[in-house]
Amino acid sequence: MLERFKVPEKNRVYVEVDSIRHVTEAIFRKQGLSAEEARISTDVLIINDLRGVESHGVSNGLRRYVSEYSSKNLNPRPNFKVVRETKTTMTVDADKALGIHVGPWAMEQAIKRAKDYGIGAVSVYNTGHLAGCGYYAMMAAEEDMIGHCMTAGGAYQTVPPFGSSPVMGTNPMAWAAPAKKMPPFLFDVATTQVANNKIGLAKRIGTTVLPGWITDLKGNPILEEIAAPETGSYHLLHIGGTRENGSHKGFGLALMNEIICNELSGFGPGPILRHHGGHFFQAYDIEAFTDLDDFKNNMDNLLEFIVNVPPIEGHERVIYPGLLEAEDYEKRVAEGIPYHEEVIEWFESYCNEVDIDCNFSIINK
Amino acid sequence: MLERFKVPEKNRVYVEVDSIRHVTEAIFRKQGLSAEEARISTDVLIINDLRGVESHGVSNGLRRYVSEYSSKNLNPRPNFKVVRETKTTMTVDADKALGIHVGPWAMEQAIKRAKDYGIGAVSVYNTGHLAGCGYYAMMAAEEDMIGHCMTAGGAYQTVPPFGSSPVMGTNPMAWAAPAKKMPPFLFDVATTQVANNKIGLAKRIGTTVLPGWITDLKGNPILEEIAAPETGSYHLLHIGGTRENGSHKGFGLALMNEIICNELSGFGPGPILRHHGGHFFQAYDIEAFTDLDDFKNNMDNLLEFIVNVPPIEGHERVIYPGLLEAEDYEKRVAEGIPYHEEVIEWFESYCNEVDIDCNFSIINK
Repeated sequence: MLERFKVPEKNRVYVEVDSIRHVTEAIFRKQGLSAEEARISTDVLIINDLRGVESHGVSNGLRRYVSEYSSKNLNPRPNFKVVRETKTTMTVDADKALGIHVGPWAMEQAIKRAKDYGIGAVSVYNTGHLAGCGYYAMMAAEEDMIGHCMTAGGAYQTVPPFGSSPVMGTNPMAWAAPAKKMPPFLFDVATTQVANNKIGLAKRIGTTVLPGWITDLKGNPILEEIAAPETGSYHLLHIGGTRENGSHKGFGLALMNEIICNELSGFGPGPILRHHGGHFFQAYDIEAFTDLDDFKNNMDNLLEFIVNVPPIEGHERVIYPGLLEAEDYEKRVAEGIPYHEEVIEWFESYCNEVDIDCNFSIINK
Repeated sequence: MLERFKVPEKNRVYVEVDSIRHVTEAIFRKQGLSAEEARISTDVLIINDLRGVESHGVSNGLRRYVSEYSSKNLNPRPNFKVVRETKTTMTVDADKALGIHVGPWAMEQAIKRAKDYGIGAVSVYNTGHLAGCGYYAMMAAEEDMIGHCMTAGGAYQTVPPFGSSPVMGTNPMAWAAPAKKMPPFLFDVATTQVANNKIGLAKRIGTTVLPGWITDLKGNPILEEIAAPETGSYHLLHIGGTRENGSHKGFGLALMNEIICNELSGFGPGPILRHHGGHFFQAYDIEAFTDLDDFKNNMDNLLEFIVNVPPIEGHERVIYPGLLEAEDYEKRVAEGIPYHEEVIEWFESYCNEVDIDCNFSIINK
């Protein structure tokens, strides 16, 4: 993430990983999830936080999920219904499960199919927020596969090139692939200039948004740097920003995502039906294509080649997607996860309200 | 394509489709291809030209291929060797076939596997230029599948964010999906701000390149509009252009492409081995996931919704990837394909040299 999205030093509270896991699991159990399902949902958020993807960790997600469970928009005890399947594919009605609840299960099904047949893919609809796609893609990478995940959640956030009103969500996507010695490739992005969550983060930490990231409410791109605006007072632009700078490419990626997550699953167009959007999980077994050991050696050589590219003046180094995430992971396991004090206050206040013991281990820096 | 890449009106020669097909097939036969294989290679280029993707039609491609055949870098009579296969996958050594020679065959193999097992994917290495990815993705869409194709060709063109030297090629990718009444979705792009071919096109027609499209030879992004530069005097930037504008997303997409086309195929890293790059072809059978008729109706509704979004002031309409391509196709079948007069001169000169009858039907406008 760009530096502007990090929690400012003065507001950081470093929390030891096991203790934030423990409290988050208790919160999910309080929503009605079983202990095992609470553990899995928590794992998605905490791993995101450990990887430095705090836009998709507990900070933004948890209070939203609690509110969706309490309004019965989410089902804590869903029965996943397989509505169609073949040797390599599966389409699932998730019975209003939260995305982070059904997602790990769905990627497991894709991995199983890939083990047996080379490739596996699972479409999921009637479900909630997925908290990014990286976690699921990495599940496959950890099984010596290439993982791919997309979600078409939340329509009406992004305007197409030259459009005056929003159509799709931020429609994120991820791919992951293992290496041997080098940290794995993990590419996990929204198909907008920035994820919507990041505008919220920027607002919370009082920073700006850059030219070409968002539009006014009439769809006109804002081409100067401005203070992060209020939710509801802007739309997002696709990757590229303006048409001359390639926003048709970001738009096309987002539309590919919409088609695969919503039309291929049979859920139907998100922009018309105004549903939460479907998810898509895919695994490619590396051994189905080539020798696994060769693959991993090639990955090491490729990724090493990239980090050895000399940087241009004024910059420290060249990185690849997944490298910072692996570095953040190591650091945060050792030093705790830096949350904004306001997030910790929410935890304490909510836990107090529903009678959960909120004894975080705070690490003094 | 942006208007700046179109052949200027004054230089256009409109050629009737069958006659350019006929001459192009003769040129491929002259390289040693069988009549049927010459027909298929020609079809890729002419369909690209008909769809308005002239950066990947006969204009830029043909003289390059002729030179590669004549220097024996390409094999006109290859034996495709399947080096590994499973129910859903296949890895192929193409025996130095041109990409447009092996590509249609490879996508057919992916489609066959998808018909039997839901998904099919074919990796191809030891091969030449693919002429974009859209043609192959559309082959699957025409069989009521979602098609996906990528190629990692031509390393050393693009610099990673903050890098001082080029690593990968333009690494293009395409997805296609059918609709019922609406023209199909066809998303076919390079993972750079612009394809390298387009800089050549811009040079030929005397136009400019925009800020954030390319770098100088030290990797510094050129942030003003300049005349299209000579080949060899610039590097390309990934989608986004600068890091603050999201070039890490374009870079990540390109690297995903490199990993799937070159590492998954066992070909090895393009940036290190300096090979031409592998290709990847994938088909998803829509019926494996959902009802085909529902899918197509949903596609119609989605695509209609998009073209009905009111445009912002100063713009005519909102489009989706594939719409202009379908419109160009109709128009060019009826009115001929507008080639630059310089391209026609090359045809005439080359045909004269190798004794091919070059009787184009020129359509007077």
